[in-house]
Amino acid sequence: MTTGPLGQGFANAVGMGLAAKMMAARFNIGDGFKPVNSYIYCICSDGDLEEGISQESASFAGHLGLGNLIYLYDDNDVSLDGPTRYSFSEDVKKRFEAVGWHVQKIDGHDRNAVRKAIRKAQKVTDQPSMIMAKTVIGFGSPRFHGTSRAHGEPLGADEVKATKAALGWPEEPTFLVPEEVREEFARKTKKLAREHKKWDKAMAEWRRADPQLAEDYDRYWNHTLPDGYETQLVEAVKTDKPTATRDLSAQAIQKLATIAPFLVGGAADLSTSTKTTIKDGGSIERPQDDPKDPPPFDFFRGRNIHFGVREHSMGAEVNGMTLYGSFFAYGSTFLIFSDYMRPAIRLSALMGIPSIFVYTHDSVFLGEDGPTHQSVEQLFALRLIPNMTLFRPSDSAEVAMAWAWAVGGKHKGPTLIVLTRQKLDPITRGGGFDPHEVWRGAYVLDNYRDGDITLMATGSEVPLAVKTADLLKNEGKRARVVSAPSLDVFDRQDVDYQNRVLGDRSRIVAIEAGRSSGWYKYVNHDALVIGIDRFGASAPYEQIAEHLGFTPQKVAQRIREWMR
Amino acid sequence: MTTGPLGQGFANAVGMGLAAKMMAARFNIGDGFKPVNSYIYCICSDGDLEEGISQESASFAGHLGLGNLIYLYDDNDVSLDGPTRYSFSEDVKKRFEAVGWHVQKIDGHDRNAVRKAIRKAQKVTDQPSMIMAKTVIGFGSPRFHGTSRAHGEPLGADEVKATKAALGWPEEPTFLVPEEVREEFARKTKKLAREHKKWDKAMAEWRRADPQLAEDYDRYWNHTLPDGYETQLVEAVKTDKPTATRDLSAQAIQKLATIAPFLVGGAADLSTSTKTTIKDGGSIERPQDDPKDPPPFDFFRGRNIHFGVREHSMGAEVNGMTLYGSFFAYGSTFLIFSDYMRPAIRLSALMGIPSIFVYTHDSVFLGEDGPTHQSVEQLFALRLIPNMTLFRPSDSAEVAMAWAWAVGGKHKGPTLIVLTRQKLDPITRGGGFDPHEVWRGAYVLDNYRDGDITLMATGSEVPLAVKTADLLKNEGKRARVVSAPSLDVFDRQDVDYQNRVLGDRSRIVAIEAGRSSGWYKYVNHDALVIGIDRFGASAPYEQIAEHLGFTPQKVAQRIREWMR
Repeated sequence: MTTGPLGQGFANAVGMGLAAKMMAARFNIGDGFKPVNSYIYCICSDGDLEEGISQESASFAGHLGLGNLIYLYDDNDVSLDGPTRYSFSEDVKKRFEAVGWHVQKIDGHDRNAVRKAIRKAQKVTDQPSMIMAKTVIGFGSPRFHGTSRAHGEPLGADEVKATKAALGWPEEPTFLVPEEVREEFARKTKKLAREHKKWDKAMAEWRRADPQLAEDYDRYWNHTLPDGYETQLVEAVKTDKPTATRDLSAQAIQKLATIAPFLVGGAADLSTSTKTTIKDGGSIERPQDDPKDPPPFDFFRGRNIHFGVREHSMGAEVNGMTLYGSFFAYGSTFLIFSDYMRPAIRLSALMGIPSIFVYTHDSVFLGEDGPTHQSVEQLFALRLIPNMTLFRPSDSAEVAMAWAWAVGGKHKGPTLIVLTRQKLDPITRGGGFDPHEVWRGAYVLDNYRDGDITLMATGSEVPLAVKTADLLKNEGKRARVVSAPSLDVFDRQDVDYQNRVLGDRSRIVAIEAGRSSGWYKYVNHDALVIGIDRFGASAPYEQIAEHLGFTPQKVAQRIREWMR
Repeated sequence: MTTGPLGQGFANAVGMGLAAKMMAARFNIGDGFKPVNSYIYCICSDGDLEEGISQESASFAGHLGLGNLIYLYDDNDVSLDGPTRYSFSEDVKKRFEAVGWHVQKIDGHDRNAVRKAIRKAQKVTDQPSMIMAKTVIGFGSPRFHGTSRAHGEPLGADEVKATKAALGWPEEPTFLVPEEVREEFARKTKKLAREHKKWDKAMAEWRRADPQLAEDYDRYWNHTLPDGYETQLVEAVKTDKPTATRDLSAQAIQKLATIAPFLVGGAADLSTSTKTTIKDGGSIERPQDDPKDPPPFDFFRGRNIHFGVREHSMGAEVNGMTLYGSFFAYGSTFLIFSDYMRPAIRLSALMGIPSIFVYTHDSVFLGEDGPTHQSVEQLFALRLIPNMTLFRPSDSAEVAMAWAWAVGGKHKGPTLIVLTRQKLDPITRGGGFDPHEVWRGAYVLDNYRDGDITLMATGSEVPLAVKTADLLKNEGKRARVVSAPSLDVFDRQDVDYQNRVLGDRSRIVAIEAGRSSGWYKYVNHDALVIGIDRFGASAPYEQIAEHLGFTPQKVAQRIREWMR
């Protein structure tokens, strides 16, 4: 994995710790061998602790009592701009105790102290552990010792020499591994090989003892899905009534949950709005406080995660759970709050891991919450992140296929599923529709294959395009309709297919309730692009749609003017 | 102001408190009347405290001992998804004490307790104050009392009636102001009017006593700049050597600091990299801990702010300082970390306030820090935010005019100044260049006015375009060169000007070291767009430039192939 930007690794490890706890709850169920018994170690810095994401995820980890987490804080009093006292004077011990962590303070240069602290931390099973290890940056270097230069600069050849001299270390060879270290490592390697063998044996026995459980276990790690699972999903997500795509997504999640036990997820305190709760999936909750009175049920067996109002750490924790490897994990919130978690989305794309992010309330049409909660620029801003797949589905089939994509390994990077709050009229499909067309990113609706112009839209604007085409048809104007649930996927198609779908790029009407500029990648300047290029206002959906011209009548009128 | 997204208001208030402290240090300097003596009050929620940005700014406020801050935490145990115990179990008192706050716990329904707590908080002058007010959400409503429904739903007419009945309140009129409340308010209004008059009188005396100080004071609030300040800036920022635009920006800041005393700012622990320190401006530092041993110097007189590794709160604190009204404040970090602060940037745009954000290391060309630190999609992702002005200047004149724009009130919203780490060769300007052309967003370089094709570039790619044009000239091909320091400003020009600058949109070569798709808003599909559409790698600048084809030779070669 890559952490890079400060704070991300801190929260990734919390996600890993949660995933491990959830696997343990599922598979450490006999009295004997426990297949899931790892600790998650994280080394963090002042900078990590200054970033707010570390507080979010520390609070979450403390809340859930993730005792498998062991953090070492390299407490060296120095950041890039100089001593940390310029901007950092927290009582770190108290801060972490306040959010439920077990905290130790040690001399980070005393390896026995480090060893003892880790042993102690391992024994604390109901709280995450923070080991504050006081260290000196650039230790031993005559000129860099304890200064911020050691943070940002390489020592250089001369200073390396001087440091070796100061520490009583031979100058040559450049990379010296003393004989006693070699011996220690050889001894350790042998010991660990023995332990590994022992573990393999125990694991084999465990498999034999309960083959069904072992099969379940493998299913998690292999993400096994039944053949034709995507068709099952499409069958399961059906409606003939106006329905919000967030509600269709809820249907997809329920179905997927039955065929993919390894699907888990939650929301940043918006699950009632994002509709991402797995029914009968159980809730991951804080274990009972008193260890002498254990809860009747291991909450880590649950599938629904309450991330709290912490979008950024939710993103990084979903990444951590995904990296752990046994789960497909999703995190959900309003599309506008994708801004709070962009650094985590970007890292999932950079790492090429299949994190799933669900965003509802996907445009100004969320209505009364007003402009602070209305997405305008988020769609194309997200599409700019390389190696990421954003779906904005328009009906049940597209919602089902978007979810099928997310868990189906069709692309290495993350999948973002963007959904409406408002109800959409279902699209009437003809017999020529194959749901797999959705996986080409954009395709021509089978009832609207011919025409002089092409109406191209995504999500909530596809039913609008269909109705507009019907209006125009009554006047003798024929329009093709292209649904583009994922421009990212469409970008990966061959040029022939792209050209076939787009047709004459000057005769396209692109409609999307968001910033319009991104469309010019697909259409010529004399095309008609209908978007929203300013902040909105607080009003009911219908009023906003009318005011901004997102009705079939108004779109048709703009098309008539454009065609003149 | 608008807070909207959770946590923003928490950090805005910290920015306001800091601004007030800084004004007090500058103008409360006599023994008598103190013109700056306000408290900043903030009402916050569980959700605010869950967001990491609140921890970032709380730590910053505690570090600086901002005793003028008084926060009331509406501690009602309920969030949108249900009881806060689903995800929140912090010892909030301990958490805030750990970062240096004075904390009180009260019954939030006891107005005498609220009054007493505020009085006490006002007396704590060396620590920010947090008043934890335990309340019941939907108090008195038979059905909503203490439940999450009171968070997300209106009570409705029937429940309002029932609540009034339960609380012993008359059902009619709908909005009842009891006579005793009217009397209390009338009494209070009179008292406050007297105090206001007294204050006006004292302020007038203060002005008479020291007219020079009063003039300085007004200068802060009016942001008075000398006539032709932008020309002064252009004169001050000069170079004939290869120079990074971040270093040119440092020159601009030094000059601007002398003519605009109200310019203050800092970095998120990267000031040595972003080069935003005001020389001799003094540093805002933690006041000495022992109140009996006051520091010899009031650190709040400083101009350089150490925001810590806290980009998100830096953004919101800069917004708070800007909203306070007397300062032009900037915050700086690497361009990639604009992702950490997008919600704050967006709100500054939505509010239309002139916050200044400085972003250096603006592309993959930052080199060795690698892809986690290299911007690819940030430029166009930021440009999608409505009502925001992003400058990516290419030389000294453009850097100077970008800074002049930021403080000059040319646009209501925020200004982002995006700068290179690597050195750029200066552009040779002809006599026909007027620096005010920079304020049109894009313009034709006066030495490259004629040609069959147009090379259009921003920032570090303008010198590349110039060199490429020179190469092509040697082969008898003439190229115009357009520098586009701000596409946002260019978008606001009239269509005639835009068309004149762009020329034939099919004959444009657009060059920018970032995602290419945004350019199609300006050029046709048969134009040549040279960008970077994938994540980079860690390597020295020259290697990356060579590998990605960002050298005059390679660009010229691509142009030759494209022209065929």
